[in-house]
Amino acid sequence: MRTTYCGLVSEALMDQTVTLMGWAHRRRDHGGVIFIDLRDREGMVQIVCDPDRAETFAVAEGIRNEFCLKVEGRVRARPAGTENTNLTSGKVEVLCHSLEVLNPSVTPPFQLDEENLSETTRLTHRVLDLRRPAMQRNMKLRYRVAMEIRKFLDANGFIDIETPMLTRSTPEGARDYLVPSRVHAGQFFALPQSPQLFKQLLMVAGFDRYYQIVKCFRDEDLRADRQPEFTQIDIETSFLTEEEIRAMFEEMIRSTFQHAIGVELPAFPVMKWADAMRLYGSDKPDLRVKLELTELTDAMRDVDFKVFSGPAQSPTGRVVALRIPGGGEMTRGEIDGYTEFVKIYGAKGLAWIKVNDVAKGREGLQSPIVKNLHDAAIAEILQRSGASDGDLLFFGADKATVVNDAMGALRVKVGHSEFGRARGLMQGEWEPLWVVDFPMFEHDEAAGRWNAVHHPFTSPKDGHEDWLESDPGRCIAKAYDMVLNGIELGGGSVRIHREDVQSKVFRALKIDAEEAKAKFGFLLDALQYGAPPHGGIAIGLDRFVMLMTGAESLRDVIAFPKTQRAQDLLTNAPNAVDEKQLRELHIRLRNTQAAA
Amino acid sequence: MRTTYCGLVSEALMDQTVTLMGWAHRRRDHGGVIFIDLRDREGMVQIVCDPDRAETFAVAEGIRNEFCLKVEGRVRARPAGTENTNLTSGKVEVLCHSLEVLNPSVTPPFQLDEENLSETTRLTHRVLDLRRPAMQRNMKLRYRVAMEIRKFLDANGFIDIETPMLTRSTPEGARDYLVPSRVHAGQFFALPQSPQLFKQLLMVAGFDRYYQIVKCFRDEDLRADRQPEFTQIDIETSFLTEEEIRAMFEEMIRSTFQHAIGVELPAFPVMKWADAMRLYGSDKPDLRVKLELTELTDAMRDVDFKVFSGPAQSPTGRVVALRIPGGGEMTRGEIDGYTEFVKIYGAKGLAWIKVNDVAKGREGLQSPIVKNLHDAAIAEILQRSGASDGDLLFFGADKATVVNDAMGALRVKVGHSEFGRARGLMQGEWEPLWVVDFPMFEHDEAAGRWNAVHHPFTSPKDGHEDWLESDPGRCIAKAYDMVLNGIELGGGSVRIHREDVQSKVFRALKIDAEEAKAKFGFLLDALQYGAPPHGGIAIGLDRFVMLMTGAESLRDVIAFPKTQRAQDLLTNAPNAVDEKQLRELHIRLRNTQAAA
Repeated sequence: MRTTYCGLVSEALMDQTVTLMGWAHRRRDHGGVIFIDLRDREGMVQIVCDPDRAETFAVAEGIRNEFCLKVEGRVRARPAGTENTNLTSGKVEVLCHSLEVLNPSVTPPFQLDEENLSETTRLTHRVLDLRRPAMQRNMKLRYRVAMEIRKFLDANGFIDIETPMLTRSTPEGARDYLVPSRVHAGQFFALPQSPQLFKQLLMVAGFDRYYQIVKCFRDEDLRADRQPEFTQIDIETSFLTEEEIRAMFEEMIRSTFQHAIGVELPAFPVMKWADAMRLYGSDKPDLRVKLELTELTDAMRDVDFKVFSGPAQSPTGRVVALRIPGGGEMTRGEIDGYTEFVKIYGAKGLAWIKVNDVAKGREGLQSPIVKNLHDAAIAEILQRSGASDGDLLFFGADKATVVNDAMGALRVKVGHSEFGRARGLMQGEWEPLWVVDFPMFEHDEAAGRWNAVHHPFTSPKDGHEDWLESDPGRCIAKAYDMVLNGIELGGGSVRIHREDVQSKVFRALKIDAEEAKAKFGFLLDALQYGAPPHGGIAIGLDRFVMLMTGAESLRDVIAFPKTQRAQDLLTNAPNAVDEKQLRELHIRLRNTQAAA
Repeated sequence: MRTTYCGLVSEALMDQTVTLMGWAHRRRDHGGVIFIDLRDREGMVQIVCDPDRAETFAVAEGIRNEFCLKVEGRVRARPAGTENTNLTSGKVEVLCHSLEVLNPSVTPPFQLDEENLSETTRLTHRVLDLRRPAMQRNMKLRYRVAMEIRKFLDANGFIDIETPMLTRSTPEGARDYLVPSRVHAGQFFALPQSPQLFKQLLMVAGFDRYYQIVKCFRDEDLRADRQPEFTQIDIETSFLTEEEIRAMFEEMIRSTFQHAIGVELPAFPVMKWADAMRLYGSDKPDLRVKLELTELTDAMRDVDFKVFSGPAQSPTGRVVALRIPGGGEMTRGEIDGYTEFVKIYGAKGLAWIKVNDVAKGREGLQSPIVKNLHDAAIAEILQRSGASDGDLLFFGADKATVVNDAMGALRVKVGHSEFGRARGLMQGEWEPLWVVDFPMFEHDEAAGRWNAVHHPFTSPKDGHEDWLESDPGRCIAKAYDMVLNGIELGGGSVRIHREDVQSKVFRALKIDAEEAKAKFGFLLDALQYGAPPHGGIAIGLDRFVMLMTGAESLRDVIAFPKTQRAQDLLTNAPNAVDEKQLRELHIRLRNTQAAA
């Protein structure tokens, strides 16, 4: 029926007759002629309806925004001076020969090019919201990304194998979504938080290279960058080393950027977790920000200033400086703003020094704190941070976790600020990296136990198996995170393929043999039958696409997202269901008034 | 680490050194030499361990079935006379230089080439079951099929857009799987039975061409060819006619057969639903079976034989014959067997006539029923059925629905029987067709109402809108089913794109305005904003692959299927969950003893 898309009409079709289908984006009457911007998923083209053709003109007069139209006409050049260089079709227009209304439209609740619509309006009228060119672009790019990933994986011998959606509940980590069983009274399926164990089982089954682009579920309170159902690029391979796995998936991401948006990513630097924490206070540093933390803990032990010496003397404390080149210009108001900012992360305050004249030493510094620091400490601060005249130094001194969170966030905040951009503290468009050599476990002070940093199926480095029970804090994992512009795109690890090592990890996590058998018996069992060495990665597709499109919310890259209260405003889900349905599932509501 | 797959080692690698990873499928000691069949997902190769290399030989002596191994060695020709023509690697073997056990295996509960394992054994030990070459082949073919479909759709401008898994429950058709909401007490999500409404909304949103290979869910009692979660190839397009849609998806299936298994399907004949029912008693006839029903209803109205004249005189009755060429040979025992068979479909018996000598008329017939048929009736039977000497005629006479079910099934049963195959009543390997022009509605006698044959969003033929309320039984739908070898691969329709027509259909189905607004308000709303003409298809991937592989059960083409009691025997799901989880979801069990 259609000869081409509206958005693809160009000079190449000059003088040809085309048939187009699309929506009236805008209608203008100008000098007795009617102009319609006809829109489809590929873009827009200008349709000209001349009063010479009375029948067509009469139809055109009845056209309103969002009518669905069929247009036949001839492509011709736009009059000189009326070209629109923003459009593929901007040099041409279509002189309409025949115009048919395929379906009229009532007046839309908002104009498609209206900005600053509320989230509620957009999600309630999602179908119209999705007609907006930006949303069309986002969904098309999302598809292109997924398809490029599929092509790369196909070419590398990976096969897509579907894992179940109705699985077993293993309540740790995030909260499961549950599905009551009708056939087995009192029992429940869980929706998968990830296909982790199934993909490992597929490796044990000998499929060698697996992938899936798959929905996963977490019933958690939502933040701006979380959705109850999200899409994971889930990959696993056998017989590759940690380095080989990373090289392959780095290549996958580079190839996807190249083919989907024409961007050549730089090679991914590889950074140890310990170095990332030391230099950036973060395990996902934004390397576009050209600021680093300066380690001062050892140099502050004997200063009078208790705010510094306290944490410096504590085994779990840390003291750092963050040098802001040119930051001496900052006003007191700006500094106060950053002081409030770091409090979000638990910091009690934000000490600072303005470096007016390095050569003058103490006299060249402006700060409420220098009087409490002895000369040697000041010399260390200036020397280690490499401070120059006109710089500002911020300080963090607290428990190491607080210092890392607060100063890591402050580093990014300053870098992304108008000041930071103007001063060149933020450079480069795309800065990927690998963070590697994560610790296996982190200690939960409150619970007095060790938790897995990644998940309990992550392999320790060779030789570290021996410390699993004797010294868990010393064990480094064969785990790696892929980071881009300060966002964790994904993470993975080499997995444990030996049953004895897996059992040791369960013991280190205080999961006793009985519990391990009940929950993970099928995995322990499978590992006994010649399980191959294997590992993989999982990448969040939603966040990946959000990053590529520059969208501000996950909801701009998901066709039918949930609100922050986990609702679908379009279909009005969740909703009350019939009592009969509940009876069949052997459940009842706790508060029956809540039922419809 | 690996230079190639075991299954791909061939003469092309002669004299080269290869590194292989795989599993010991079998170990044989022969003449002081150890032979290991090393298996990976691509197949097997023979490894030869010579006592000359003492270290390697010692390792080889410890190898048992299913050990995971790394082998390095040189490819050489097998000694003359020991080639295995069934294997790609059958002309060569690998002389082992180095052998490493990557992971040993305990003794498997069964041999991988054991046949007739119980379903329970296979599903409980699914990881080992999936190592079987047949399962590896099935999963790889499944992937290839899905990928070929993606490639075809990509080339035709379709884009994959994900629709939600947590959706609104609309309890009609099959039973929904429900997911209790934690945030909204007393409310539930439902897992989708199909993305039908979302894909229509995507068309209204202007995405033009959509597809998804997506999990769908139905909580029904399971038959051999049903699973609680199944995979649908779900497609929708705007602006195409019924014929254009069919042509496109016929091409998709032909292209998939060609690229996935090298089969050129014949062009799909297009058959009206009424003709399919008349000729085959089925809306999914197996055209490999070269038998047709003969219509006799009008010719049997005045016979003495009440079994025929009763249904022939009833407005809802039907009388047909099924001619079996050469069926005169059938024994009384065989005929009795078929009589039992048709009873499954509600038939009360199975009348028959053996045609010994057509020329002799009544005298040439052998049958318990001819005495009750007058000469003209007998002449009609012989003439219309085209009976020849040696043929057998079976008769169905009952309500039309019973006749169609019973005689349609009998036609297939006889065709597929040993007799049918020997007599050439079953021909051709792949016989696809389109069945079109389905009725919009079928009458539910018991409930005294009309039900949608496809679903309530199916468009009537042009002009049939007017009968929607006045004469629903007369309305023909723009619906089409794709049938292959008697199996319904998929079905689809042109959808209703006008709000007024959609509302009329709801009224015809006795869904009043209030109910329609509550359940489908978002669709009716969307249709008002210039919804484009659109339509699509949904194809069951599991069944499609089952047909292509010749597998006997859906469970042979799904990696981790459920049993007929909707259980996962591998992970033991569903299972009991913590009381805390239920409390968070605002539900309790009806029978608390059932809780763990």
